[in-house]
Order: sequence, then C-alpha cells, then structure tokens
Amino acid sequence: MNAWRWVTDADAALLTDLYQLTMAQAYVAEGLQGPAVFDLFVRRLPPSRNFLLACGLDSALHYLETLTFGPEAIAYLGGLGPFTPRFLAYLAGFRFTGDVDAMPEGTPCFAGEPLLTVSAPLPEAQLVETFLLNQVHLQTMAASKAVRVVTAADGRSVADFGLRHMHGADAGLKAARAFSLAGVASTSNVLAGQSFGIPVSGTVAHSYIEAHAGEPDALRAFLRHYPETVLLVDTYDTLQGVRHVIDLARELGPEFRVRGIRLDSGDLAALARAARALLDAAGLGRVQILASGNLDETAIAALVAGGAPIDGFGVGTLMGVSSDAPYLDVAYKLVEYAGAGRMKTSPGKATMPGRKQVVRVFADGVAVRDVVGLRAERLAGEPLLRPAMRQGKRSGAAPTLDESRQRAASEVHRLPARVRALAPAVPPYSVEISAGLARERDAVRQRLLGST
Amino acid sequence: MNAWRWVTDADAALLTDLYQLTMAQAYVAEGLQGPAVFDLFVRRLPPSRNFLLACGLDSALHYLETLTFGPEAIAYLGGLGPFTPRFLAYLAGFRFTGDVDAMPEGTPCFAGEPLLTVSAPLPEAQLVETFLLNQVHLQTMAASKAVRVVTAADGRSVADFGLRHMHGADAGLKAARAFSLAGVASTSNVLAGQSFGIPVSGTVAHSYIEAHAGEPDALRAFLRHYPETVLLVDTYDTLQGVRHVIDLARELGPEFRVRGIRLDSGDLAALARAARALLDAAGLGRVQILASGNLDETAIAALVAGGAPIDGFGVGTLMGVSSDAPYLDVAYKLVEYAGAGRMKTSPGKATMPGRKQVVRVFADGVAVRDVVGLRAERLAGEPLLRPAMRQGKRSGAAPTLDESRQRAASEVHRLPARVRALAPAVPPYSVEISAGLARERDAVRQRLLGST
Repeated sequence: MNAWRWVTDADAALLTDLYQLTMAQAYVAEGLQGPAVFDLFVRRLPPSRNFLLACGLDSALHYLETLTFGPEAIAYLGGLGPFTPRFLAYLAGFRFTGDVDAMPEGTPCFAGEPLLTVSAPLPEAQLVETFLLNQVHLQTMAASKAVRVVTAADGRSVADFGLRHMHGADAGLKAARAFSLAGVASTSNVLAGQSFGIPVSGTVAHSYIEAHAGEPDALRAFLRHYPETVLLVDTYDTLQGVRHVIDLARELGPEFRVRGIRLDSGDLAALARAARALLDAAGLGRVQILASGNLDETAIAALVAGGAPIDGFGVGTLMGVSSDAPYLDVAYKLVEYAGAGRMKTSPGKATMPGRKQVVRVFADGVAVRDVVGLRAERLAGEPLLRPAMRQGKRSGAAPTLDESRQRAASEVHRLPARVRALAPAVPPYSVEISAGLARERDAVRQRLLGST
Repeated sequence: MNAWRWVTDADAALLTDLYQLTMAQAYVAEGLQGPAVFDLFVRRLPPSRNFLLACGLDSALHYLETLTFGPEAIAYLGGLGPFTPRFLAYLAGFRFTGDVDAMPEGTPCFAGEPLLTVSAPLPEAQLVETFLLNQVHLQTMAASKAVRVVTAADGRSVADFGLRHMHGADAGLKAARAFSLAGVASTSNVLAGQSFGIPVSGTVAHSYIEAHAGEPDALRAFLRHYPETVLLVDTYDTLQGVRHVIDLARELGPEFRVRGIRLDSGDLAALARAARALLDAAGLGRVQILASGNLDETAIAALVAGGAPIDGFGVGTLMGVSSDAPYLDVAYKLVEYAGAGRMKTSPGKATMPGRKQVVRVFADGVAVRDVVGLRAERLAGEPLLRPAMRQGKRSGAAPTLDESRQRAASEVHRLPARVRALAPAVPPYSVEISAGLARERDAVRQRLLGST
C-alpha cells in the first residue's frame, strides 16, 4: 500500500488491465488455446506527425521473455473473487511461448501498419496486450516527437532536459533512450546515461547564481570547478550576464576556457544576436550560445530559419511529454484465430484481418509507398516486419542503441523530403492495402455479416 | 545497458539532472552548506484548469527518506570526469537531513502557491529537485485532470481504463492512485489494485467476441464464467449486440444476472438511448449502460447534460495523459539562502523570495481567497502548508489513500462553485500576496539591482 512503489520485472505481470485476466481465464476454461495473431498498430497519425519512429521493441521482448506470475501476484488475484484455482495454477506456470515479428527500433512507420505482431496461443497473446501497448506507445511517441526536434535543429546539437516534467520515472528513463535513438545528442538524465551509455550534459541552474552574493561571484566560482562549462546568463538580466562573462574572460585571460553561455528566457533570437555581437566584439567568437526554455521543433525551426546565432538547444518539457501529441492512437487487435481471419467492424474502429507483412517500395533510393499485405503474399519491396522472437526466445541479439540510432537516421533519410519535413506532407505518404489483404477483409466481413 | 531497465529506490539517486550533481559539488567545495529554502510551485495554471489537486507528497517523502548513492552510482559518476574523490565520498555518505512543509495530498491549490517547501543544507536541497518535480508533477497533473472528470460525471461512476496509453509503467501506477484520490471509483490496472487497495474493474474486449464463432456465442460463453459481468456490445453492430444480450436474457431466464452493457464507439448518446429503450422494453431496466471510448470531462458533461441514460463511464487515454494539459508549469526555486531572501528576475519567470506559508480564507464555509505570505507573518486563514518532514524523518504517519480521497472531496467541496466547475472561472480564484511578502520581494529586488 505504499504510494511510492516501483514497477520491476516481478510486478510487470500485474501491470495489466483486469479484463486481460478474466478473458484469459475464459479462454483457458473454454479450451480456446489455439493460435492467435494480434497486430499492434497506430490507427491514425496525430495531425502534426508525417511519420512515426518505431521504438520500444526491446522492452516488449524483455517482458515476454521474463513474464511470470509470482506467489504474491497469485495470492492477490486469488483474493479478488473471479479467478478459479485451475486458472491460478495456469498463471503460476505461465510462460510466453509465442512468436513476435516486428519492425526494428528506428524504423519509420505509418498508420495502419503493424509495428509488431504477436502469434501465440490465444490466452498468452491476450494477456500481454496492455503491457506491450504501454511500453511501445511511450517509446514510439517519444522517438516520433524527438526526430522532429532533431530535424528542426538542422545539424545543431539537441540536449534532452525533460526529466523533471516527464510522466514519472519510467517515462523519464525510457524516453531519454527513445530521444537518443531519434538523434538527440545528450541527456541531462544521469540514470539514462548510466543505463544506456547516452552522453550526459548539463550547465548550471539559476539557484546556483542566486545562492551567491552576485552574478559575477557566482560565475567566477563555478568556473573554478568547471573551467569548460556553459554559463547561464539570464538569472537577472541576460545581456548584463553576458557582460559579466566577458569581464571574467578579461580577468582570467588565457585561463578562460568557457565553452558557451545559455539563454533560458526572453526573446531568444534577439538575445542570441545581441549576445553574439557582445562576445564577438570581445574576441570571444569561440564561445557558443545555447538556448533553452519552452523550446519545441516549431520554435527551433523559427530560430534556425531566422538565422539566430544559436549553436545548440536544450529541449525540455515540450519534447518530454510530446506536448502537441501526448498520445498515439495505438491499438492491439486480434486479426486471426485458429487459422481464420478476425476483425471488428465498429464504425471508425474497423480492423484488418490476417497475418501480415509490410513492405516499403523505393524508387531511386527514396521510399514511395508502403504496402500492407498478407504474410502469405509475394509483395515487392523491403519487408519491414522481421522475426524478433520464436517460441518465447529472442531471434538473435538486440541491436545496440548506436545501431538503432544509425538505422533511424538512415531510414528517415530514405523518406521523401516532404514526409521528413515538419509541415504536414501533401500528399501524405502512401500506405496501400494489397489485393490479397483487401480480398481477405471482404471475405471475413462477409462471413461475419452472415453469422451475426 | 538494457533498454527495459526499471527504476527502483536503488536507482532513484541518479534519476536526476547532471547539473544538480555538478552544482552540489561546487556548493560543497565552496562551503556553501548553509540553510536553503526551495519552493515547489506551479507558475501558472493551464487555461483549462481552475485549480489543481496536490498529489505526490508520499512519493516525495519516501524518496527523501531513502535517498542514498550506492557503489554502482558512485562508480558511474566517478567515471564521468567532473567529480572529485572528495565529492564522491560526500555522496557515498549522503542522507537527506532537511525539513519539508507541504500541502497534504488532496488539497486544492493554485498558481504561485508553494505545494511543498524544502529547507535543508544547500547541496541537499539542490540535489533532490529533479526527482521531486518529476513525481509531484505527474501525480498532481493526474489528480487535477481526474477531479474534472469526476465532476463531469456528476455522481455516476468513473473507471480508469488508461494504463495502455499512459507514459510508461510508473505513470500507469502512480496516476491510477492519483485518480483514485481524486474520486475515480475503480481502475482496470491490476497492479494499482494490488499496490494501493483500489477496486479493480473491467469488462471484456472485442478480441474475446471476435475469437468466437459469432457474437451470441461469445456473450453466452462469457456469461458462463462471469454471470454478473458487463457485456461489450459494439464489436459489429451496437444495437444488434444489445438484441443479442436481450436474447440471452430470454434464454437464461432467472439465471440472467448481467450487470450492464458497454458501448465503446459511435454516437454514445443516441446509442445509449436506443439501447435503454430496447432493454427497458425487454424488462431489463436493471441492466446498466456503461460508456467508454475517447471520453474526457467535456464529452462526459455533454452526455450528462443531454440526459443520455448512461450509468458509468470508462475513461482511458484522455484522462490518462491529461491530454488537454499534459504538463504543468511546475518549478522548484531557491527562495532563501543563509537567512536572506533569493529570487530570479528573468522576464516572465521572476520568483518570490522567502520562507512562506499559504492560508485559505473562508466566508460562510466557502473559500474566498488564498494569501501567500511569509512564514513569520501572522496570516488570518487556514494554513495549507503543514510539517511533513523534520531532519529527514517524516512528521507522523502518512494519511491513507481513503483519508486523502475524503480530504480531496471535502476540500474541493469548499471551493466556490465557479472554481469547481469545468468552464474557466470568471473571475479566477483570488491568490493574494501578503504585505510582508510584497515588502520582502521589493527589498530583495532592490538589493539585487544594487549588486549586479
């Protein structure tokens, strides 16, 4: 009953919706343990996304490899009422034994395409839905936002400063990794640095400046510890702060090795220009200007387009929570059971039946369209879904974060320029349904209309 | 280097921004270990919030009580470069020894009011900033969204279905608790049920219906396991689904004990009305109608205002990520060091100096204004900041979740009706600065202008 409790592997089994367990019990009791296929896909893109960057597969596979129901979980479930001793025994022996095919992390993807498919006995495939969605959603959302910020920065460095306003500890950690995968250069999050080998970065906060008798004292003191640091100059008056840095350069002479200054408030374009002029006039052309404070891809693109002399960006909350699209309409849907296609036909939420593959078709090295088809079809193009797990075991080692980052960069580079751009792509990237999948959809719909 | 790594108490020390550690090292080296006071407060409310509901204190206090830097953390930091053996030894012996005064969880609060103040030697108070913000931000944001949803439901039950789209595991768990504190009746999140004693609830998913030969078979099968369940009726055609439920009632006679049906797509108001009519005509007036699917407080208020015969709401993503306000502008700022007030004067981000208290003034049992003043002043009204920790130890036992939920309900009830309402309050609730605090601000500003 502790409010601060953490989630770990031992708890992950219960990090699910109750109905997954009640449905699984019903499946087991009814003998519905035949092979099921579920697709994890995004129904539609947020208006401000031309594409998404798949991320979260490694978390998903780890969960599937390690998922067990320990004695505490079984005891809690036993006390709830609806679960029979037979089903609790099933859970006590539960291991995920199925297959996963998935887009590698860092693959650009679009609405209607499975990022991941699970093939497993129905109760197993059902039970894992909530956790897979929770993790793949978070990480894909984060990577898909960050790749836009990196695009906007157009070669300038981007640092993740978002931890304090991200939604909890797990988001802070996993999104820092997703940002790195999307091309963000560093993170302020020390645990993410330790966990994933991401470069950690940071400057100094207003509190440090305020704790000293005056700004010059504070800057001088900080430099004594960190001669190559980035100094924050906007605590009281930004340009006065820049002058204090210049005074220090004169005072320290060749000892002055400050790497940059940071602007964190006000009109960043105007202040960067004025600061640049002051620094250059003082012979400090090598001192960089970093900007932070309410930045997102739109603000950064405007600063870059306006020629603001900013060398790098610290990006916090707006990237950290993907503020313009804080969720994706991602779903996990049954598409085949016992060899027959399944679909829902609810208005606006209809699904596509069948075991699928997604291929990307290129012309002159540029992606021109994706085709979602049946796995059994022969589809021309590069297949995006690859074996990730067979019978509960990973298919090969996971790529490193560096490898996934390189994959993301090169695959994004192969998208058409209009799709990579920040503005809505006109026309949007084309995702087609194969002839075989269209026939399967019509056949299943026909069968359902006949039977219901 | 595992992508799936979890955060636990042992890792919490590194779940911080790098600059907290570099600043702390500088403070220690400079002997700046005097008493500091930091305020944790929200700069301004999102446009769609008339008030916030403070939440996350228990997580914050647990962190402060248990924060230590273990050997792995020390080793990682040692390898980064900027940290001296002397500071690493300081971290190895680190314990938080300070005081916390805070609004109890479930207290309605407003912009400019400290939710929590930390008084501790400067390096200690600085080091804990990022984690405190991360947790108090998440939980306060979640509670502040949920209380609006509960208000909109106007006595009808609200269930949290948000786990799958919330930002990771920690958000899923902590926000479920915050929702419960704000009056949400149950959660689908089994781990939140186990961890916090929240009632767990759930119905059945489309996949279950689809896995069976037809909808009637599926519904009949599910009832065999869960005779008092809520049946999902919109997999293929909602009103046809309702007719299938009615057929089952005829078939089962007195055995039919279904508690409700769930509508999850389409025009919920129209479908609820049509479903109600069908059920009533079949003598099934006691079968409730639950609605879900893209619901938030606006949609729920419209359904309630339109008289839709809906008995309860399942609310997922839009509450889960606080989609209209996915972050709060919450900050943690130095306000006093070594007995002297501190502030920043950056445009738009100026802070108020001094050790504070917040009082709420009531007239005829209704809150009429809050006053933010200095702790040393005599302020008329109910004090909102209470001792929560002294010298690193909690001041008394934490309230239970039930107690905090009751506190939230009764304190929200004491707000003016326009502030409790969903529409923007006109005028907004009044938060005043005491005469003493205004004098202190002017004096500190004067001193800073003189010295910089």
